[in-house]
Amino acid sequence: MADSFAVKQFMAVEQPHRAVIIGGGYIGLEMADALTVRGLAVTLLEFAPEVLTTLDPELGAHIRAELTSRGVQVATGKAVAGIGRQQQKLCVQTAAEERWAADLVLVAAGARPASALARTAGIPLGDGGAIRVKRTMATTVADIFAAGDCAETWHRLLNRNTYMPLGTTAHKQGRVAGENMVGGQREFQGSLGTQVVKVFDRIAARTGLRDRGAAAAGFDPLTVALTAWDHKVYYPGAEGIHLRLTGDRSTGRLLGAQIVGHRRSEISKRIDIFAAALHQGLRVEEMCDLDLSYTPPLSSPWDPVQLAAMQWCARQSGT
Amino acid sequence: MADSFAVKQFMAVEQPHRAVIIGGGYIGLEMADALTVRGLAVTLLEFAPEVLTTLDPELGAHIRAELTSRGVQVATGKAVAGIGRQQQKLCVQTAAEERWAADLVLVAAGARPASALARTAGIPLGDGGAIRVKRTMATTVADIFAAGDCAETWHRLLNRNTYMPLGTTAHKQGRVAGENMVGGQREFQGSLGTQVVKVFDRIAARTGLRDRGAAAAGFDPLTVALTAWDHKVYYPGAEGIHLRLTGDRSTGRLLGAQIVGHRRSEISKRIDIFAAALHQGLRVEEMCDLDLSYTPPLSSPWDPVQLAAMQWCARQSGT
Repeated sequence: MADSFAVKQFMAVEQPHRAVIIGGGYIGLEMADALTVRGLAVTLLEFAPEVLTTLDPELGAHIRAELTSRGVQVATGKAVAGIGRQQQKLCVQTAAEERWAADLVLVAAGARPASALARTAGIPLGDGGAIRVKRTMATTVADIFAAGDCAETWHRLLNRNTYMPLGTTAHKQGRVAGENMVGGQREFQGSLGTQVVKVFDRIAARTGLRDRGAAAAGFDPLTVALTAWDHKVYYPGAEGIHLRLTGDRSTGRLLGAQIVGHRRSEISKRIDIFAAALHQGLRVEEMCDLDLSYTPPLSSPWDPVQLAAMQWCARQSGT
Repeated sequence: MADSFAVKQFMAVEQPHRAVIIGGGYIGLEMADALTVRGLAVTLLEFAPEVLTTLDPELGAHIRAELTSRGVQVATGKAVAGIGRQQQKLCVQTAAEERWAADLVLVAAGARPASALARTAGIPLGDGGAIRVKRTMATTVADIFAAGDCAETWHRLLNRNTYMPLGTTAHKQGRVAGENMVGGQREFQGSLGTQVVKVFDRIAARTGLRDRGAAAAGFDPLTVALTAWDHKVYYPGAEGIHLRLTGDRSTGRLLGAQIVGHRRSEISKRIDIFAAALHQGLRVEEMCDLDLSYTPPLSSPWDPVQLAAMQWCARQSGT
């Protein structure tokens, strides 16, 4: 919050024209959107080959296209080496000696848990330096509980703790911790890594595992890609939705999904259909049995999430 | 389709100014929307005390308000006795001798299965005159299958056949019938009665059972009502969503949900989260464990579907 108010104050006083954002994740993308809307010329620098590395690069590319179409200069594969000053300007430079001048530089290159208090108190830390917790949100020290961005998160599909700071998870963990601190016996039911971000008029959402994470966890992942209309194309305003669906080849189990599309295409709640299915351990094929809602202005008799499932099943069976 | 083309043709040739629609269900509401957009003065007559009787009247009232705000004259509790002619006009009249003049009258007072061919052929009919089918979509006559609006639909929660003609169901049944006709062994996984309709800028959606149907099926239903913001209210454009959630008091099992809200509030895919949960027989409390997506422009850390679940749990436990 303090950073946010400081940026707002700086903008009111200094009236910067040119911003460089370091990091093409959620915060970097949202700030690229917000600063562009406020009239700044924005450059976004990302270390990876594509923005939004929480999605497969094929989908990240759609977000890059949205950024570019709104005038954001996107430079990927850039390792920032330092930030200096040149006359009145800040100057961001890479190891390869590329330079970007700026009136404002935002560093949004990832989050770390604020677990210093716990560490000082001798409470063991775990994944990514987050406070080690059980599913009751108890730390390994008696009568001390932890929840939220400072603590580990149990992953429902990986069946182990991870560091994955998300607001939704923090709220759930807080309730579990609270209930147990007053004598309850509840367990956190786990995260699927469900996430969504708005970048101008595009929404990017994901839930569950992608190929690499699934393979590392011992699954045999198969991923299919599909572009489908968000609703019946004869009804005005249809937009394409880009989906990627990952399932386990040997068991047929749904492992994860990613969707990018227009902000009016119910992307966020479409990923939530996958999240609800994942929570219950559904097989991909069972997605096609779900009785989902349909009216021509909003979907098709087979919703895009089901079309993706059908394509996965056809690929798995080799038909 | 023929009726639809006939109406279009009539409108092009006769240029009607005033329409009366008999029936305030999906077809009637969609036509009230469409004809109003085309410039006609529309009166909607409904026999029941409120429009859209597939939802509880508390939610139907929001759809009535949308219709009224767009200039549609809505008259409920009206039993149409006949349609006559008065000079150049059609005249719709009730048993109570109320009269509405019209250039165009649409009767949209319900659907009946086109099962005459089956009846003539000696194939037994079932619920509502629809062709009796097993979950394989086989009729009770060997080698004859039926699917779609002419056939019965197995209801996943009621655990029996019903007559419920919906496009989504027809598609699923058609695939099951087709697979079994060529030697497959698949069963239709059932309908939850998931439905959605757009009326101007409002969306009304439902899935599962409501109080009366649940009680008739032997459940002990409890329904709660909630109005929540579709996304964080500090982010521009937040709209209220009206939800009703029904669960079984004794087992805690989710039985159904109804939502009305703005067409930009992802109502359709929010009902689908409930549908996915219902398909798996989730308890209401488990809705709160789902890892749903969140970003301030699109939702809250507890999505409205989870806020409704929380309220239900609080009511059930009497807290």
